Amino acid sequence: MKLVFLGTGSGAPSIKRNVSSVALIFSDESKVWLWDCGEATQHQILRTSIKMSKIEKIFVSHLHGDHLFGLPGLLASRGLACGKNQRNIQIFGPEGLDSYLKDTLDISNTYIPYEIKITVIPTNTKSGVIYEDEECKVNYCEIIHSIKTYAFSLEEKKKEKHFLIEKAREYRIQPGPIYKSLKEGGTIQLPDGRVLHGKNFVINSQKRKKIIFGSDTTFSKNLVNFARDADLLIHESTFSIKEKENALCNFHSTAGMAAETAKNAKVKQLILTHISSRYNLKNKNNRVSEKDLLTEAREIFPDTLLAEDFMIYHI
Amino acid sequence: MKLVFLGTGSGAPSIKRNVSSVALIFSDESKVWLWDCGEATQHQILRTSIKMSKIEKIFVSHLHGDHLFGLPGLLASRGLACGKNQRNIQIFGPEGLDSYLKDTLDISNTYIPYEIKITVIPTNTKSGVIYEDEECKVNYCEIIHSIKTYAFSLEEKKKEKHFLIEKAREYRIQPGPIYKSLKEGGTIQLPDGRVLHGKNFVINSQKRKKIIFGSDTTFSKNLVNFARDADLLIHESTFSIKEKENALCNFHSTAGMAAETAKNAKVKQLILTHISSRYNLKNKNNRVSEKDLLTEAREIFPDTLLAEDFMIYHI
Repeated sequence: MKLVFLGTGSGAPSIKRNVSSVALIFSDESKVWLWDCGEATQHQILRTSIKMSKIEKIFVSHLHGDHLFGLPGLLASRGLACGKNQRNIQIFGPEGLDSYLKDTLDISNTYIPYEIKITVIPTNTKSGVIYEDEECKVNYCEIIHSIKTYAFSLEEKKKEKHFLIEKAREYRIQPGPIYKSLKEGGTIQLPDGRVLHGKNFVINSQKRKKIIFGSDTTFSKNLVNFARDADLLIHESTFSIKEKENALCNFHSTAGMAAETAKNAKVKQLILTHISSRYNLKNKNNRVSEKDLLTEAREIFPDTLLAEDFMIYHI
Repeated sequence: MKLVFLGTGSGAPSIKRNVSSVALIFSDESKVWLWDCGEATQHQILRTSIKMSKIEKIFVSHLHGDHLFGLPGLLASRGLACGKNQRNIQIFGPEGLDSYLKDTLDISNTYIPYEIKITVIPTNTKSGVIYEDEECKVNYCEIIHSIKTYAFSLEEKKKEKHFLIEKAREYRIQPGPIYKSLKEGGTIQLPDGRVLHGKNFVINSQKRKKIIFGSDTTFSKNLVNFARDADLLIHESTFSIKEKENALCNFHSTAGMAAETAKNAKVKQLILTHISSRYNLKNKNNRVSEKDLLTEAREIFPDTLLAEDFMIYHI
């Protein structure tokens, strides 16, 4: 799988960062899922190799405009681009999303030549499963923002081949051509004449990749538990530690808060996103830059990256 | 005054052309009015010298998404960019615009730190004045599209100095330095000794520039009358003559229809906009290019230009 960061700014778009959206492209590139859909997400997609027709599911974390206002236009353009013979689409999000979409598409008389199925998260639940199929499961968990907001986790169920390193060591096979051949299922002969079959060194294991799409939140213990042992946590980092008060007042996070969540949850990788345009280096009044956000986070959690628009992350 | 074309494509955005919007910047650059506001109009504005705080009025021709979906995000970002001390905004458009905006801003919990006054055009009227002040007047006129759609005219009332050429001729003054000096209000002495004062050769006259913002329509006699003698007609040209049936079925215009309107209305200048992405030369299946649209129109009405995103037109 790979992720394409389509919008990594907060609140309003800037030249450098659009408002929120991330695309998840599955390994065989047969389908794309979107996580949030700020205004001009469809414009960002035009600048990638993503095909609109392959977008199958859209998860909306909350109904603030910078995560939502691109949705009606994207759905309309998907219809215009692909005509009648395209896949239906499923959209998931907070209560109110259904009426927003219905009202907006109705008043604009937008013709959608495919079916849209909307699933809303019941307001009286804090967490649960919102989607599951043979390949993966998506859970939601309420986080702490000024309106009802959810983080989502995607847990993969894909079977992966697992090479038995310890067994290879018993035969004193070190990483190299023989090791590689065995790993790929080949048959090799050792210098002492013994023949080894790769199939005896490989087992099919359940390897569940787990990705957390964190959305807008201040530090949330719920999110720490939800993100436990994830392979990747995408977490907002609207502010630097120097504006911690601002972060708390507005239910957002500092880079340090994001890193604390990653550290406590013991995730493998943290990616900071939802970066305020005030940290853009072109603004000469800045005392803090985007790089400082990254430094702030890495002091707490070293395995941190700073997202930028069109960044691709393989997982 | 000058116009900045922010979006000149039809239906869905392309890399080359965004969906519809035109900005009108008044001569002293103190204020900006927008005509339609398709998705990512605010993103286009970021790429110009236009200040969000100077946008005072927005005219919406109809409620199709490619003319409308940028409005909530633009209003929200204008609030974030400029804080509390900014001007109020007036928005004009068809019935339904008020509930669309109210519902969208409510459900997204968007805080707008300035007043928005919405004026809707009564559905039972076909034409009328929608705004007037000391400087200019804006009329609307219903045109022919798949939903209720209006063209707008802006008529300027600016006072301009007018030189009395006939009176100068009585004194046998030919164009040249003396003529120029009089025109600028100076005092001159003729070879025969007579003294002439420029102020007696200049009168203040009402010169009304008239601009027509045409929007989506098929050929409309109403629009011909409405655009009569305008200095500029901005008219859609979604299709070429080769797709006239398509134009008629979808209540759009060919380049030729736009030119017929310009010719019959005796306007001074026609600008074609709302160009379908099918005519983008990068699409190798094209038999017709954007240039062909321009040629088609110019055969009927020579004073035609083809708009492109970020084109500036002085008037």
